[in-house]
Amino acid sequence: MSVERTKIESGDRLRYDRAALEQFGAALFRANGLSEEAASVTARLLVEADAMGHDTHGLAQEAGYLKALDDGHMIADSAPEIVRDKGAALTWDGRYQPGLWLTWRAVQAALERAEQFGTASIAIRRSHHIGCLAAFLPLITERGFMGLLYSSDPAIKAVAPFGAVEQIYTPDPIACGIPTRGEPILIDVSASGTTIGLSMRAIAAGEKLGGDWLIDTDGNATDDPAILMAYPPGALLPLGGADRGHKGFGLGLMVEALTSGLSGFGRLQGPTHQGASVFLQVFDPDASGGGEAFLDETQHLANLCRNARTAPGAPPVRLPGQRGLALKREAETDGVPLHPTILPSLQPWTERYGIALPQPRR
Amino acid sequence: MSVERTKIESGDRLRYDRAALEQFGAALFRANGLSEEAASVTARLLVEADAMGHDTHGLAQEAGYLKALDDGHMIADSAPEIVRDKGAALTWDGRYQPGLWLTWRAVQAALERAEQFGTASIAIRRSHHIGCLAAFLPLITERGFMGLLYSSDPAIKAVAPFGAVEQIYTPDPIACGIPTRGEPILIDVSASGTTIGLSMRAIAAGEKLGGDWLIDTDGNATDDPAILMAYPPGALLPLGGADRGHKGFGLGLMVEALTSGLSGFGRLQGPTHQGASVFLQVFDPDASGGGEAFLDETQHLANLCRNARTAPGAPPVRLPGQRGLALKREAETDGVPLHPTILPSLQPWTERYGIALPQPRR
Repeated sequence: MSVERTKIESGDRLRYDRAALEQFGAALFRANGLSEEAASVTARLLVEADAMGHDTHGLAQEAGYLKALDDGHMIADSAPEIVRDKGAALTWDGRYQPGLWLTWRAVQAALERAEQFGTASIAIRRSHHIGCLAAFLPLITERGFMGLLYSSDPAIKAVAPFGAVEQIYTPDPIACGIPTRGEPILIDVSASGTTIGLSMRAIAAGEKLGGDWLIDTDGNATDDPAILMAYPPGALLPLGGADRGHKGFGLGLMVEALTSGLSGFGRLQGPTHQGASVFLQVFDPDASGGGEAFLDETQHLANLCRNARTAPGAPPVRLPGQRGLALKREAETDGVPLHPTILPSLQPWTERYGIALPQPRR
Repeated sequence: MSVERTKIESGDRLRYDRAALEQFGAALFRANGLSEEAASVTARLLVEADAMGHDTHGLAQEAGYLKALDDGHMIADSAPEIVRDKGAALTWDGRYQPGLWLTWRAVQAALERAEQFGTASIAIRRSHHIGCLAAFLPLITERGFMGLLYSSDPAIKAVAPFGAVEQIYTPDPIACGIPTRGEPILIDVSASGTTIGLSMRAIAAGEKLGGDWLIDTDGNATDDPAILMAYPPGALLPLGGADRGHKGFGLGLMVEALTSGLSGFGRLQGPTHQGASVFLQVFDPDASGGGEAFLDETQHLANLCRNARTAPGAPPVRLPGQRGLALKREAETDGVPLHPTILPSLQPWTERYGIALPQPRR
């Protein structure tokens, strides 16, 4: 193991076979109590996030999930509990079963219901963390459907309402998958200027952020993430920042209401450990203006944007998801690159269960 | 008429009885060919926008709509044409019938379907302009439902994709109504930093904008709306501006796909006069986690935000819709204030049809 250890601590992003990473991730989840299905689905979606370049929300999450299983903050999967079923609208109680698996199940159910009713939405209360929202979108767009996925975590607060300086709610991501005649458009944006993960990474690196995306307790917008560690702490600003943050604030409230409002479980219940309120919607273009007309429109829109005039010397427009999909294709061929801290974070678990670390490609 | 004329051109915001304005607005629409229902619904929703303080999207639009009827760009109402009906998802072809009336009909239909299926969505292609999105939200929240309303105009372009300097798509508003135990949260935000209307108003007044919400053709963010009149013109930046505009760009693409993609009519068809692609969704909280649980959550969220700590000396947080609802209450009591340009814009129509201008309150 010593050679391996040296390699994974070297700071390089070594590349690994995708299938090997998925099997490795699944083996650890199985060993700690998840079913075959939940273990493999969760590992596959985490590796998908790494493959798309979202490396804070890929296998970097697995050690935390394994520990949550130990602590009872995540429970082993059995089945989502149906709170209500009105045909096109379902509500599930996840009881803190694995969030990626719950959301994957929700995608399957919503696709089926949307075929029947034209659209379907599923609200999930008390899911565990659902990882990278963008990783779910190809499951929807590959079937020719359009999908929207929202999440919030009622146990966590980071963003200040516009006009305030106190952390009240989460960055509240909005993800949207749009099929076209070419590759899909995959949107995954938070309703805040930046995220907790990126702020923490900047703090650890002693760096400033790329813009004034935070607010200190005196009400000044700042690029200094250290204000999040002050007492009392500052907060993340809504998307739009100091001048247009009322817009991001509105979007954040919308996500909070869709996820925690419609699922009927949120900040009022005061949960104390990581989890997620989730809201998923799927639309069948065949049930709307028609599948062909939909693809004609979205492809035309993509073309208009890609061919839009740029400033002299500037690169062409990149559509949301374009970079992630290119990285994913590269990962299929060359292997999935892992951030150098990821496998070391899982080493205690490999030792506990006697499961070998995956070997990097040469 | 001369005294009246002096008054309405005086620059003061005179106040008018709400009912009188609605009857006046409806009389002009009826005179130019709309049915009793379409005329009264359209006038009522325009006056609602004025009452809520959205004075660029209230009666200020009526002269344009009347002219569009003359030009055949808006046609008199008969009924929306059903393109598809899958129960929870409907698609209508508006054939450029009055947009506020079409959207009002869609709200009624979506509420009924959402009661049945838990959620419902309606896409409308070839609507005429739908005015102020926020004006529709109380129709949904008063019934205890949550609603989302999106629109774009495939005949108009103003916003540059993130990374470009060319106008490609519209500001693409997202509106969301959330019932609480008190007054509802009414969100109405565009996916761009500012709107066409506010930019044009600043140009007319020779003013700068409140921030760098535009981009010139050299790729510089700017607060100078005059760049929109240059040749070639600059563009509106997506929400998030020069540093975070990839987020607003993603949201804009989402709105374009929901409205023009799902309705099956958009920029590909190259319409040449004002219109709207519309997407409406309604959610029945009773079909989700439960109506009481929903209201408990949203009221708690509203309380958390309203009570959030602010910077020393700063006013308390204002929730989206709070100001509009306060103005609306004031308008019920004191009359609806009209921007001084509005009634003069309708004077040619009052003369054509021999309909008296409403009299301001003393």
